[in-house]
Order: sequence, then structure tokens, then C-alpha cells
Amino acid sequence: MKFQKPKGTADILPVNSAKWNYVEKCARKIFNRYCFKEIRTPIFENFDIFARSAGDTSDVVTKEMYDFYDKGDRHIALRPEGTAGVVRAYIENKLYAPEEDKPYKVFYMGPMFRYERPQAGRMREFHQIGVEAFGEDSPELDVEVMMMAVNLFKSLGLNDLHLVINTLGDKTTRDNYRQALIDYLEPHKTELSDDSQERLYKNPLRVLDSKDLQDQKIVSEAPSILDFLTDDAKARWERVLQLLDLSQINYSVDANMVRGLDYYNHTIFEIESHDESLSNGATICGGGRYDGLVAELGGPETSGFGFGIGEERLLLLLDKLHLLDDLANNLDIYVVNLGNDQVKSETFKLVNYLRNLNYAVDFDYRQRKMKAQFKSAEQKQAKCVLILGEKELNRHQIKLKNLIDQTETMLNLLDVYTKFKDIFNKYVG
Amino acid sequence: MKFQKPKGTADILPVNSAKWNYVEKCARKIFNRYCFKEIRTPIFENFDIFARSAGDTSDVVTKEMYDFYDKGDRHIALRPEGTAGVVRAYIENKLYAPEEDKPYKVFYMGPMFRYERPQAGRMREFHQIGVEAFGEDSPELDVEVMMMAVNLFKSLGLNDLHLVINTLGDKTTRDNYRQALIDYLEPHKTELSDDSQERLYKNPLRVLDSKDLQDQKIVSEAPSILDFLTDDAKARWERVLQLLDLSQINYSVDANMVRGLDYYNHTIFEIESHDESLSNGATICGGGRYDGLVAELGGPETSGFGFGIGEERLLLLLDKLHLLDDLANNLDIYVVNLGNDQVKSETFKLVNYLRNLNYAVDFDYRQRKMKAQFKSAEQKQAKCVLILGEKELNRHQIKLKNLIDQTETMLNLLDVYTKFKDIFNKYVG
Repeated sequence: MKFQKPKGTADILPVNSAKWNYVEKCARKIFNRYCFKEIRTPIFENFDIFARSAGDTSDVVTKEMYDFYDKGDRHIALRPEGTAGVVRAYIENKLYAPEEDKPYKVFYMGPMFRYERPQAGRMREFHQIGVEAFGEDSPELDVEVMMMAVNLFKSLGLNDLHLVINTLGDKTTRDNYRQALIDYLEPHKTELSDDSQERLYKNPLRVLDSKDLQDQKIVSEAPSILDFLTDDAKARWERVLQLLDLSQINYSVDANMVRGLDYYNHTIFEIESHDESLSNGATICGGGRYDGLVAELGGPETSGFGFGIGEERLLLLLDKLHLLDDLANNLDIYVVNLGNDQVKSETFKLVNYLRNLNYAVDFDYRQRKMKAQFKSAEQKQAKCVLILGEKELNRHQIKLKNLIDQTETMLNLLDVYTKFKDIFNKYVG
Repeated sequence: MKFQKPKGTADILPVNSAKWNYVEKCARKIFNRYCFKEIRTPIFENFDIFARSAGDTSDVVTKEMYDFYDKGDRHIALRPEGTAGVVRAYIENKLYAPEEDKPYKVFYMGPMFRYERPQAGRMREFHQIGVEAFGEDSPELDVEVMMMAVNLFKSLGLNDLHLVINTLGDKTTRDNYRQALIDYLEPHKTELSDDSQERLYKNPLRVLDSKDLQDQKIVSEAPSILDFLTDDAKARWERVLQLLDLSQINYSVDANMVRGLDYYNHTIFEIESHDESLSNGATICGGGRYDGLVAELGGPETSGFGFGIGEERLLLLLDKLHLLDDLANNLDIYVVNLGNDQVKSETFKLVNYLRNLNYAVDFDYRQRKMKAQFKSAEQKQAKCVLILGEKELNRHQIKLKNLIDQTETMLNLLDVYTKFKDIFNKYVG
């Protein structure tokens, strides 16, 4: 019997896990500067939470959820994205209480699940890094969070970044715009794609981000939401642009961008990478303001702002740009050993002594031929080898070979046990 | 509508996530010394993998799996433990190939799922840190891995550790012992618990670790597996003990320990913490050798050795012993700001400038009263505050207050933008 991983999932083996870990470490470091703290919510939640937060027109709910009934007949679902669970936790743990300092800024990273056709960068089990900030509606927060995303990508070596923003305004803005959009689209109704026809009255804004070419042609002449902003929404939007200018971040406005989910208002954004080795821009991050979502899920009226990054897609991009090539294997010492049981025992003792000094150390468990052992040391990119045979052990010596400059030094075994840090600094560095 | 997390799951909020992250960072550091690399396998696998690896008599399979059929009618299950998925990945990715250096040493950390009655330290979604090493049957590996576990716990501050070991020998050993055990238990059959009666012929070794008091009394007089070891198994066992002595690790042998799962052979072990503040010992780690498992799941004959640590239980213990109390909040600077729009903009610019210098910085988005802002700075344990008002801004100045020694210094704003690192080192340190 041959077992296989489930379709649409991946094994992240050591050769790649170092890359994942590097990206996650960078994210933790940047988020820490902005005082976002980690939150971990369950892998599954009540099905209704995702259904409620995604909105009725979203594909995620209707077709793509990993949902099932547990042994207690609860309808649960593997989380398809990170925001809903964090919002549920925010409400259930009463993090809106005044004792909790605001904005309440959190980040998460972990697996998410969508039952969809797997393709490169779109897996059934995929991974997101995301942030959410609750309880602060000032434009400063919007810009701070967008800047944090930009700085994360810069710290990973991505330079040609493109921040695309838009505003969905407040409720009055959207109600007025919604009607104007329907008025504009209605005469074109029969020319629209089936999906867009279905959305025309339910959620006409979603027609704006249709991927259908004919839809896009029609939409390109549609009225702009920017012309429907209320005075308040307009003042807020202008402050966002002003703060972006102040922060010297390049951005462009795309008034047709609406983002996939229904709960956004005011600022929404996407970040694309335009590094020249890519044929066309890749969206690596998206997010925005979702002031209604906490109330929608049963909490008090609370503003929110967040973003999500698809880790698979980000790693594909970084790999393509060779930004993860130098994540060195960090083996410090490989102990080549050959000889009787005493050599074996001494090797074992020495290896563990050196590990307790915090060096990364490995050795040959089977005393294969010298050549094979050296090959292993090189494969593992050891900085140096220590060579112990019967002759050396009888003389209380051990040989050190620097694998970078190939120099060899005979050492006193006693010195190795008493002042190895000095030795390592001197001969390996 | 009030949504709640599913029964038996937990939200790990920022106040606690720092503790989780600290433990995981320590584990990564120690594993790196021993050259164990990270592997990440899917959250769910084919149901049969877990059924096959756990063995027929295990409770995990029969009652406690989160299994379901996906939209493609595949019978899948959320992983109840980490080893089976890693073994499946080892086989599927042909990591047994000679090009892959052996032993193939990996670690994992992440959520696991068992549908059981939730209680303190036993959740339905719980977290394990585990390691597996494949393709090396030498006793050195057994001792190295046990030592690595002990050193991880020591690095977390646990001192009164107790390593309990046993051997289950090779197949001949177990076959002979199995018969001897049945011969011994049969006359007592009607006195045994129902569970043990059921196991008597199917898997008599499991009777040895029954938690039933009457069973335990009967079992205390049972023959010892150590008297049934073949010559090879005995020589191997003695080498393990010799290497433990050589490594100066305290241990004791418990010949009745069998561990819960069916796939173990030769060395098995548990680590208990006996810190005096605990009423009785707590098992915080268990593992052993499982040379048959890779073949059982369809791969070539391959030896394996590993262990698992329950993260919830470990964290409960560390918390109880106050070993996680000093994980400080690491906010460097809080910017207190009060005044007109220019003050607001300057604050925003300054905060982001300082973050780009890699300081953790926060500020007040709403310009609340001075007192409220200072309270926030103290709550967040900021090392210092920078205070910017209209008066300061007009004079191109800003005040720094060290919150540890309460000293205040008036700074030139231009100096802050050109040599803040020196300033921070001088006045805050």
C-alpha cells in the first residue's frame, strides 16, 4: 500500500522549511516594531462564523469550505481565512473592554483551507500571514498598517513594489454609488457575464472586479466611487493620501478595485510586486478597513483594519527572484571518527559536549570510510571537521580541518574540552 | 448571535502567545544543535494512515479521530499525532534514497486533534513538538535524542527531571515475552479489568500500563521483559545504558513501561518533571524506537526513533513553576503627542522613522489627555516616552523621559532624526 498526501496539500521538507521559517521570522520582527502581537485561534470554527463573515455572495461559502459534522454533530469548518476567527476571539474574549489598550493589534500565521482546484500558488491547504487592528478608526492606522506591509516586503528584498489603494467610503457613499452603478449597468445587463448578471442587484460592486473581459470593458466607463464620497468619507480619504505622501510611499489609486469580500469600507489596498523578472505584476498582499465586521459577528460596533498575505505565493515570488538562495545550512562542526569502541564513545562524548556549548554539531554514527564522512560534512556545509582516530585518541589529540580555507591544525583533546570557543574563533571564526 | 470557539479548543491571546513562542524558539535552538531540521506536513491525512499506524487496539482510532469525508468523498482525518504524517512524507518523498544523508533528522511543531473529553492540559485541539530520526539503528542515536529532550527541558529551566527508560527488545524478544506474559496473566483473567481482559490475547503488553489499580497489583508480579531479551537486544540495551552513564544523565529503568502505541521496539522512554512544587511527577515527553513503522506504511524497512512533547502540558508546568514570568513586553518607545494637525503629522513621521531603525514604537492615535497617554506607555512597559506638543514642535524640540529611572532630557528634533541610536543608548540604554 502506498499512502499519499491529500490532494492539494504539500509537505514542506527541510530544504524548504528554512525558507518558510525565514519569512516568518522577518514578519515577526517587522510586526514587533509596530507593536502587533501574535494571536492563535483554532484551526476550525463553527461553520456559521465563516458563512456570516464572508457574506452571501462569496464563493468561499458556497463551494469551497472544508466543512463537516463532528462526533457531537456540530457543523464545523476548517478555517478558509484568518480574519473571522480572530474577530470571533476578539468578541468572545471581550477584548473590546476598556481595560484592553486600543488599537488592539494582532498578527497570525498558519494554515487555511479551501476546497478548490489546486494550481501553482493555490493549494487546498495554504498558509497566510495576516494582521488585524481593532478599535481605532483614524486614518493614521490605515497608513501605518499599509506601511508595515510594504516594509515587510522590503525587508525580504522585494524592491519594485506597487501599492494600489481605493476607498469604499461609508455606508451612505456605498448606497448612493450602488444605485448609480446599477443605473449605469442595467442598460448593459444582457452583455454582462452570467456571474455579473447575478451580482448586478445583489452586490453590483463585485461586478467591478470581474475577470471577464467583456465585463471589464463595460466597467471601464462606469461612474467612479470617488465621485460619490460623502464629505466625511472624502476628508478621511484625503488624509490617508496625505499621510501616504508624508511617508514617501509610492502608490496609485484604482477606483475600480473592490476586493473579494463584502465587509470592507473606507480604505482598501493591494500590494503588487513588479520586479522585472516577472512577466506581469503579482498581488502579494491585500486588505483594508472592515468597520462593520465585529458587529456582524455579534460584538459591539468596532472599527477594524487588516491585511492578509498568501505565504505560498510570496515564497514562489521570492524564490523566483533568488532572494532565498543564501539561507545557509548552519552546521558548525562535523566529527569524522574511525576506530575502536573507545573512539566511538569519545566521539559521542565530544559531540554532546560541543552541542552544550551551543554549536550545531553532527557526526558519523557508523564510522563509514573517511571519504564518505568527509562527503557528508561537505554536503551538510559544515564550517569545519574534527577528525578522531585511534592514533589521535592514544596521543590525546584531535585534528581540526577548516573546510573553508582547508587549513589543518592538530589540537590537544584536553584543550578542546576546556577552551573550545577560543579554538573555534581562532581557526574557524 | 454570540459565536463561541468550538468545544475543546482555545484562543491563545497575545498575553500567552509570547510564552508559546518562547518555548518554540528554545526548541528550535536546541534541535538545531543536534542537526534536526523542520518538516511541515498537512493538518489532515488520509484516514487509513492513522488507522494503520496507530494499530488496531488504540483508542485513538476507534473513538477519538476527527475524521470526515471531503467534497471529493475522500475519507480524511485531522492528524491525531505527528509521527504518522512525517513517516508518510518520508516514504512519499523517497527520503530513504541514498542521496539523502542519514539519519534523516526532522522536527515538527503544530496543532493535533483528538475528539475526547476536554480537561486541563488535554484539549481537542492541542499542540505537539516532536522529532523523528530515520535510517539509523545505532544506540548512539537513541541516547542522543533522549539527551536532546532532556537538554531542551533544562534550557527552559526545568531541573528536577527524571528519565525513565525501558526496552521492548526485538521481535523474538517480544514474541517470547508475549507468551510468558499470557501464561502469567491467564490464571488471573477474571480478576482483570474489562479493557485488560480484551487486550490479554490481542496485545498483552498493554495490560502492563493499565491504570486500573487491581490490574497494576497483578502486573507487579509479572515476569520482566528484561529477562527475555535476545543476545543482540541485550547487547544493544547495555550499550544504551553505557552511553547514558557516559553522558551523565540520571535515569531509571521501568520494565513495566510499554507506551501507548503498538509500533515501538527496543528503547522507549518518558521524561517526568519532579519539581518540588508539583504534588506528583508529570510526564512531559515520551518516545522511542519504531523500526517497523516505515515498512508498515508502505516504505522500505527503515529504523526510526522519535519523541513527542505535549505543548499545553509543558506550558502549564512552566507556568506553575513561574519559569515564564519574565517574558518582558519589549516596547522601546511610546510617543506621547498632544496638539494641532502638525503635531499629529510629525508624530506619525517620527514613529515610522524610529520603527525603521528597528525600535518597537507605539503612540497615541487619538491624542487623549497626557495622563491617559502616560498610562498606556506604562501598561505597555515602554522603556521611554518621547513627548511632543505644539510648544516643543515650534522650538524643534522633543522631550525624552526614561520610564525606568524617570529622568527627563530635552532633545533637538533634528538630532533625533540624525543620531537617535546614540541618544537612545545614552539616555535609555
